[in-house]
Amino acid sequence: MRVLVIGGDGYCGWATALHLSNRGHDVAILDSLVRRHWDAELCIETLTPIAPIQYRLQRWRDLTGKTIDLFIGDICNYEFLKSAMLTFQPDAVVHFGEQRSAPFSMIDREHAVLTQSNNVIGNLNLLYVIHEHFPECHLVKLGTMGEYGTPNIDIEEGYITIEHNGRKDTLPYPKQPGSFYHLSKVHDSHNIQFACRIWGLRATDLNQGIVYGVLTEETGMDELLINRLDYDGVFGTALNRFCIQAAVGHPLTVYGKGGQTRGLLDIRDTVRCIELALLTPAAAGEFRVFNQFTELFSVADLADKVKEAGQALGIKVEVSNLENPRVEKEEHYFNAKNTKLLDLGLQPHYLSDSLLDSLLNFAIKYKQRVDHNHILPKVKWRA
Amino acid sequence: MRVLVIGGDGYCGWATALHLSNRGHDVAILDSLVRRHWDAELCIETLTPIAPIQYRLQRWRDLTGKTIDLFIGDICNYEFLKSAMLTFQPDAVVHFGEQRSAPFSMIDREHAVLTQSNNVIGNLNLLYVIHEHFPECHLVKLGTMGEYGTPNIDIEEGYITIEHNGRKDTLPYPKQPGSFYHLSKVHDSHNIQFACRIWGLRATDLNQGIVYGVLTEETGMDELLINRLDYDGVFGTALNRFCIQAAVGHPLTVYGKGGQTRGLLDIRDTVRCIELALLTPAAAGEFRVFNQFTELFSVADLADKVKEAGQALGIKVEVSNLENPRVEKEEHYFNAKNTKLLDLGLQPHYLSDSLLDSLLNFAIKYKQRVDHNHILPKVKWRA
Repeated sequence: MRVLVIGGDGYCGWATALHLSNRGHDVAILDSLVRRHWDAELCIETLTPIAPIQYRLQRWRDLTGKTIDLFIGDICNYEFLKSAMLTFQPDAVVHFGEQRSAPFSMIDREHAVLTQSNNVIGNLNLLYVIHEHFPECHLVKLGTMGEYGTPNIDIEEGYITIEHNGRKDTLPYPKQPGSFYHLSKVHDSHNIQFACRIWGLRATDLNQGIVYGVLTEETGMDELLINRLDYDGVFGTALNRFCIQAAVGHPLTVYGKGGQTRGLLDIRDTVRCIELALLTPAAAGEFRVFNQFTELFSVADLADKVKEAGQALGIKVEVSNLENPRVEKEEHYFNAKNTKLLDLGLQPHYLSDSLLDSLLNFAIKYKQRVDHNHILPKVKWRA
Repeated sequence: MRVLVIGGDGYCGWATALHLSNRGHDVAILDSLVRRHWDAELCIETLTPIAPIQYRLQRWRDLTGKTIDLFIGDICNYEFLKSAMLTFQPDAVVHFGEQRSAPFSMIDREHAVLTQSNNVIGNLNLLYVIHEHFPECHLVKLGTMGEYGTPNIDIEEGYITIEHNGRKDTLPYPKQPGSFYHLSKVHDSHNIQFACRIWGLRATDLNQGIVYGVLTEETGMDELLINRLDYDGVFGTALNRFCIQAAVGHPLTVYGKGGQTRGLLDIRDTVRCIELALLTPAAAGEFRVFNQFTELFSVADLADKVKEAGQALGIKVEVSNLENPRVEKEEHYFNAKNTKLLDLGLQPHYLSDSLLDSLLNFAIKYKQRVDHNHILPKVKWRA
């Protein structure tokens, strides 16, 4: 299968591109590299020293004999996107190529507008290229579990059957996203669903939970293939961030009470979920939604687990309940379904002591690269 | 009350600005005039000869002694918007300033992107100005009944209480919009709801139905105050379009079977609904949704009514069931609630023979201005 991975220089995208290549698919990466630019703007760096994408791909070729094509450019530039796709002729497109940080989108008006215009317009362009040039191409789009918010009823996978005043219909699940970033994903979902309905496109929307871990079979092969691992207050996410904080002796930054419950998954499951979605494409006209996570944890649970794992390694770990910079419920009902990927054959890597041990040791290995000024959250939702 | 009407040079905006001014409010109009530019691009003109906005406002001042301030510029330009609002110091903003045609948004990729970026970013800018400079200002935003689509259950006003697996919550009503334009309004609604939740803004989202009619108490005062009335396949809407078609002897353009049921209202009710929303503002943090229509009709019903009204005037009217250029259900359940504006005191002008008679005679008066080349729909959803 010929698969174009948009955003293939990022955390999930890079791991996915290598995994798909390793599994025998013909893979190309399309990326604007703007994420590296945003790191520079914010003066932050991933914990790990990531090589330029061109060197990464050269090393992959040297190690495995497999070539991954590279298109550097912005999908908001329609002519570039069209030209790249006409050159590569994909059977499927995996779209990770969006601004993916909630705090980044909440920095100020400019970042909110940047996030929504970048994500929504890039995705619209992609829908048009597929419609006009690759009508059979399967779009695998990364959404987020954060689209749902925290309703007081069970969260289904994309749709819910509602009985109301004696009638019944199955409708898109109501969305209550919690940042301008999460909102952009909700906008994308609505746009894609419409494109499937009117043009007969095939799309799978993967509402992904919080991803943790850094090593996959492929990115662990060589230092030059190392994946990025963010710990800063803008791009760092729970669990990864906590492990790095533990490694450098910083109290774990739990926002508020820590009762926020979220779906999580190991990055080794991310790459597998993507392949499972690709291997069984959506039907023509189908807008399919999978909730892509393997377990539910509260943020306080995660902090406790990292604390315990740290103690086992002889590291003293403190947990700090910070004033919550976000506006979100800190205690709430949360029960999200995630059976569709399991039905396709996903065998989850559940969060284990050995994973935490490995991630902590990984963080310790690179801890001299941590800039302590960037650990605490600085972006406030109510600013 | 000091009210800024964004998009006050348009069909609903102009009528609203004059009505609010006449009712004693201090009104300003902010408009980029881009709608007149789009008319020029598409080589279409409103049935009525509309004067430049500056002359319109001068005449209003001469007739009534009331001044309406004018700010010409684009709300996608944040500095312009902020400066205009800091100058005018509104207590409330009525936001009509969006690209409002479904066919326009479906012309091609450029028009889809223009519609979504123009509408979403303009609205985001407005949310930020209100948050940062006018936190008590009441935002009255025009949405559309088309956000809901045609679900097989009753349509409530913005929210629905769902019982699911033994639990219950009241959530945003699921949206199934039918064009990139309607999608832009869904995106706006989600963004505004979030801004209310995190920043405590006050907002009323008016999900308006199809507006018909042309004369209000104010726009009928003088020829220079005349409102626009669109009949072309891009901006013309059902009923208004049918009356003009009848006036020029063109068969009424019913798309498909005509069983599409929609909410409609008289433009005299539009202006009254806006004032009712303004007089009882949303609470701080409240995202209030009203369904703004007075009656439900199918498109075929509307065509029949125009046919009958035409016959009473001695005009022979044919109805033509065209191949539907849109993708929409032509027979469906539709039962939308609209009690909230009635509860605030709206006394509807229901569709009457006298209104149809008046609208037909109005169309006949200007029928020499009709360009027959622009009557049929040319934009196809599946193109």
